[in-house]
Amino acid sequence: MENTSRSTRECSGKEGCDHVELAKRIINGNIRAASRLIRDLEDDVLQAKETLKHIYPHTGRAQVIGITGSPGAGKSTITDELVSAFREKENKVAVLAVDPSSPFSGGAILGDRIRMQRHASDPDVFIRSLATRGALGGLSNAVGSAIHILDAMGKDRILVETVGVGQQEVDVINHAHTVIVVLVPGMGDDIQAIKAGIMEVADIFVINKAHRDGTRRLQKELLSLLDLKGECPGEWKPPVILVDDVLNKDTFNENIATLCRTIEDHHQHLVRTRLLEKKLEKKAVVEILGVLRSSILGPIVKELQATGEFDDMVSRVMKRQNDPYTLVEEVKGNFLRNGKG
Amino acid sequence: MENTSRSTRECSGKEGCDHVELAKRIINGNIRAASRLIRDLEDDVLQAKETLKHIYPHTGRAQVIGITGSPGAGKSTITDELVSAFREKENKVAVLAVDPSSPFSGGAILGDRIRMQRHASDPDVFIRSLATRGALGGLSNAVGSAIHILDAMGKDRILVETVGVGQQEVDVINHAHTVIVVLVPGMGDDIQAIKAGIMEVADIFVINKAHRDGTRRLQKELLSLLDLKGECPGEWKPPVILVDDVLNKDTFNENIATLCRTIEDHHQHLVRTRLLEKKLEKKAVVEILGVLRSSILGPIVKELQATGEFDDMVSRVMKRQNDPYTLVEEVKGNFLRNGKG
Repeated sequence: MENTSRSTRECSGKEGCDHVELAKRIINGNIRAASRLIRDLEDDVLQAKETLKHIYPHTGRAQVIGITGSPGAGKSTITDELVSAFREKENKVAVLAVDPSSPFSGGAILGDRIRMQRHASDPDVFIRSLATRGALGGLSNAVGSAIHILDAMGKDRILVETVGVGQQEVDVINHAHTVIVVLVPGMGDDIQAIKAGIMEVADIFVINKAHRDGTRRLQKELLSLLDLKGECPGEWKPPVILVDDVLNKDTFNENIATLCRTIEDHHQHLVRTRLLEKKLEKKAVVEILGVLRSSILGPIVKELQATGEFDDMVSRVMKRQNDPYTLVEEVKGNFLRNGKG
Repeated sequence: MENTSRSTRECSGKEGCDHVELAKRIINGNIRAASRLIRDLEDDVLQAKETLKHIYPHTGRAQVIGITGSPGAGKSTITDELVSAFREKENKVAVLAVDPSSPFSGGAILGDRIRMQRHASDPDVFIRSLATRGALGGLSNAVGSAIHILDAMGKDRILVETVGVGQQEVDVINHAHTVIVVLVPGMGDDIQAIKAGIMEVADIFVINKAHRDGTRRLQKELLSLLDLKGECPGEWKPPVILVDDVLNKDTFNENIATLCRTIEDHHQHLVRTRLLEKKLEKKAVVEILGVLRSSILGPIVKELQATGEFDDMVSRVMKRQNDPYTLVEEVKGNFLRNGKG
């Protein structure tokens, strides 16, 4: 794990903070440079976008794998094992642990990092936690940029680990080409999978801790739900893979090998059916919308704040003197060309 | 539950779709009118905002109570009981079940509705599921508008039920004056509460299914985490209330009564310390940002789509001919006044 001092992060025009130079170092796989850019993006440093422009042509190569599921389902364990498996194939690997569930702490919890420690000394494994929230930029946008950076670094596989419940998490997981949903038996309702709205995003289901009571029931429920969904010829049917890290190490290794093969199968399926292209198109749409939001709305809000207009709007709304719609219509004209937009 | 046919929802200038008229009916507590406006907002019907303007002066009276927690923790049970308790006091009650975790299904699952059925025939209980997602408007914005509508209808208590993990859910729950976090023993790691980032949003903790193993441990963990957080004199310390609906009906009723009293205590605390005012200010800020986003960005995106520029941008990004930052900078000038914004 990189350990660059926070004090180096200001960009003051000195050597080393030049965008082209920073981009070059990232493209050469420099961990410090990549960390710095990810941090700058989290901190909304303006110049960071300039660097992103330079690395952009070098992106689009990596395979992005999403790992999601309820808290406590064992996502980190699965991620950890996949890292090892990919490293055995000499793939360059990056892990992006997204923890938006802790917006207040400003960072992922320690546990995840500790669990990953055995890969920490491997220079070809880059692990990064992301827990940013720009009021306007959005988490999904930040994750998208981070993926670009890891991709430009030359990583072959990028694993994005995120909690599986909630709209924003679904947005995040949409960056992945292949989504693995990790479930565990006996977590309250077994209706959890449906509730979490993950039936639709899952390409592969993993039932973790599969020695536990309720495994067969959960598996049966999943399969019958998948059957219910129907299936067209040639369509991908998400397989359900049982994994257990408690009872037998050999079986566990086999489970993980099966998972790796299934990930590869799914990737081949995406390529063959041109679904990968469709996914990449959707990703581009989301990214452009995100950039429009931050580039257009961001500066408008900043100006309203600087002139005190924003505070005035807030106080009027609080006193119910005006509604926010009327107020926004009033200021809109100051920013937009003759009625446009 | 209202049952207005979807076919009536087009606003064609006929009698009954006049904004002032619709607003009046909502203010008089008309369920069909309120449902219609909520649906119009979900569907992004342009005129809906005009109606919102008219009801705005009639908002700001209701107490908003958030109920959040992991899937399977029993949020719906607690919500259901609170509805009964408030109805006994002759409060007018609304329930807003927010299920953003199922963006694809386009609606909340049936289970929640079924569980609430015993209140369905009570005209002073209004239950609505919300699972909208505008690419630009955002869920939190939609929830905010729905709360305004329920508020203007004259509801005394608005219960907002949402899954407790994820950034967007935290945004949603920020609409509440008092947040109840429902936990349940034995759900994987007991670290769930911290992982979910809910320590900071919780005003009241409920440990549900408190007959289960692990209740004392979870309670102890929560209390020690709360102690760890420290506390200033006069500060609210979130109480931990045990609830069990399995073993004894009388005890259960007492549990719920305690919860109701605690909600009231918290509300008094908010008023006394003027924290309520601060919360309302924060809410106004978030709302204005949301309206800025939908009113400014929405039309820009629509125009880019109409002219085909958007598709062109997507295809350029996909081919890596351009990066999204450069592309947005290029079109920005068409919409914004001389370099402003």
